[in-house]
Amino acid sequence: MTLSILLAPDSLKGALSATAACAAMERGARRALGATPCRFTPVPLADGGEGTIEAFLQGAGGTARTATVRGPLGEETKAQWAILPDGRALIEMAQASGLTLVSPEHRHAARASSYGTGQLVHAALDAGCSALLAGIGGSATTDGGAGALQALGLRLLDEHGAELPSGGAALQHLADIDTSTLDARLAQTDIRVLCDVTNPLCGARGAARIYGPQKGASPADIETLDAALNHFADVASRATGRDLRDEPGAGAAGGIGWGLMSFCGAQLTPGIEAVLEATNFQDKLESADLVLTAEGSIDEQTPQGKALAGVARAARSAKKGRGVPVIAFGGAVRLSGEALQEMGITAALPLPDAPLSLQESIARSDELLADAAERALRLWLCGSQNAMT
Amino acid sequence: MTLSILLAPDSLKGALSATAACAAMERGARRALGATPCRFTPVPLADGGEGTIEAFLQGAGGTARTATVRGPLGEETKAQWAILPDGRALIEMAQASGLTLVSPEHRHAARASSYGTGQLVHAALDAGCSALLAGIGGSATTDGGAGALQALGLRLLDEHGAELPSGGAALQHLADIDTSTLDARLAQTDIRVLCDVTNPLCGARGAARIYGPQKGASPADIETLDAALNHFADVASRATGRDLRDEPGAGAAGGIGWGLMSFCGAQLTPGIEAVLEATNFQDKLESADLVLTAEGSIDEQTPQGKALAGVARAARSAKKGRGVPVIAFGGAVRLSGEALQEMGITAALPLPDAPLSLQESIARSDELLADAAERALRLWLCGSQNAMT
Repeated sequence: MTLSILLAPDSLKGALSATAACAAMERGARRALGATPCRFTPVPLADGGEGTIEAFLQGAGGTARTATVRGPLGEETKAQWAILPDGRALIEMAQASGLTLVSPEHRHAARASSYGTGQLVHAALDAGCSALLAGIGGSATTDGGAGALQALGLRLLDEHGAELPSGGAALQHLADIDTSTLDARLAQTDIRVLCDVTNPLCGARGAARIYGPQKGASPADIETLDAALNHFADVASRATGRDLRDEPGAGAAGGIGWGLMSFCGAQLTPGIEAVLEATNFQDKLESADLVLTAEGSIDEQTPQGKALAGVARAARSAKKGRGVPVIAFGGAVRLSGEALQEMGITAALPLPDAPLSLQESIARSDELLADAAERALRLWLCGSQNAMT
Repeated sequence: MTLSILLAPDSLKGALSATAACAAMERGARRALGATPCRFTPVPLADGGEGTIEAFLQGAGGTARTATVRGPLGEETKAQWAILPDGRALIEMAQASGLTLVSPEHRHAARASSYGTGQLVHAALDAGCSALLAGIGGSATTDGGAGALQALGLRLLDEHGAELPSGGAALQHLADIDTSTLDARLAQTDIRVLCDVTNPLCGARGAARIYGPQKGASPADIETLDAALNHFADVASRATGRDLRDEPGAGAAGGIGWGLMSFCGAQLTPGIEAVLEATNFQDKLESADLVLTAEGSIDEQTPQGKALAGVARAARSAKKGRGVPVIAFGGAVRLSGEALQEMGITAALPLPDAPLSLQESIARSDELLADAAERALRLWLCGSQNAMT
């Protein structure tokens, strides 16, 4: 019998891409398996942040496209997007409006704009796509999606009827919104935003307060941006007749979740679920004996919508509920064996092989992940050869 | 069927005793096993250093005794020894002449004496024991066993015919050895020294150069001690008619291995083998399904006579060569999966569950070992329940 192993890791942020994690796990597992006949199916995962397009293209196939767009601070940048085999467009906000596009010393949370993300949506519409998936993790912006909406034709006007400049802070001067100029094709377009957070647009758990600091916002910037987003929501609700600022996920990616919901009829959907669906993960599970997955940190946040939780949920329901065992690997493992079992994970192995620093752990992550996969497979195989009968 | 698990860890030096390691592994394994019927047999191991008596008493039974002896620097100290069920005495050099008996600021390698260890041998002879096992790890001394031999009646004389004072450095003044006063019972006593090193008495790999620094010897002390041991060996070979200074293990424990071989007919024997024999380890393996073992560090030294290697060797030859699988745990794991397999170890799991310091790893060793045992058992059980048929 051939042992069929599904490799379904998230990226290990700052250390390994999901694709590299697949390769490391396969290498380690092969060392343990020796001459055992085996087949590996790599399904690199993503949650909507950086690497989402790569994961989709690897797991589901599709065609990569490139567009030239405005980066977070207005500079020209090349952004990849994709057309999936089912005809849907896939865009990744990090490609156009990502935090990593701006060097740390130039970060400017109050001024960063999501304009380039809107240009990607525009490119997808131009290509004839009538359905679109948008990964929005890793953004540099806190503009409620204002820039993206402007790129799609929405007019945001000050009290003199002039178009607002870029960035979230400018929204405090918003007096009126003209929706009549919005790209008409959006009304016929199904937009799904991949979103794993439940933050509202404003307030203590809002976009500015929770995600502002990592985007370089000062305490004063945060106050300004939170008030500006709140004001944007006031004006928008008058323009659209509905107020979505407290919807779960409204505050994702600097509020673009809210902006696309409010003006483009977008829906928010868990990132990992969309990836699993696009990669036919459930079908692949039916012929798998074992799933290997990985995540940078396996901790109390893991059960709440991280990739690992989605993989475990899918694996548990596979094979008419008999399930497929899942072994997980993490740079850190802070969940108890019992908590992991409840998620449907057989065991989670931490990567460090000795006392070491985070820096060393990241530098050696490829080797450490392969070693951990080897250990896990050796134990699993040994158990299977010593089955209690 | 009841799953029978043998718990056979060494101590994790500075972190957990072998007995505590047994308890932690059992606790973790039970969390994985849940309602699976299982039986645990703890066999705490030792290699002749601190914890050897505890391990023997737990694994083989026997009676603990206490003697009041001279510590390394002459101060009075209580030392435990034991009479094993087969009538042999077991003494532990660390109890009488151990490095941990002297606070770091008072360490004095040149003056430290093994006298108390000789007093323990004396106590065993007084109790009627005609066979004796001596664990010699963890000593503070570099006196070639001079002190121990003096405690047993040997006279070490300077050029004026006066008895030498305590410590290795004094041996440079040795002019003559009087063996006629040595305790006559030693000739009828079978002494086995538990020894895991192969160092000669003197020279580049000798007792002073290799082990002197950790006993507080300065570079000058090391030169003095190495020359003094060499001189001791010169005079001794004239007195006994044989020269054992280059025998493997002559340099163990500050040279007491050599001293006991030269004057008491002692034999050196691997510590782990003696422990495994005394605990009937081979018999216990015949009814075991799985062995869990542990060591502070699993590294390139492990295959050379450490406890883990002995356990693996015994497990591999059990059940008429079919073997019993061994899972190992270590504070650090620096051997490849292939090297472990060659030793007969299925897999070795490192204890750290995240990037952490050595200090933190030691402080959390009990919890980390239990968690690692739980992981290993969950993987093993999962494999056994998904046996490839």
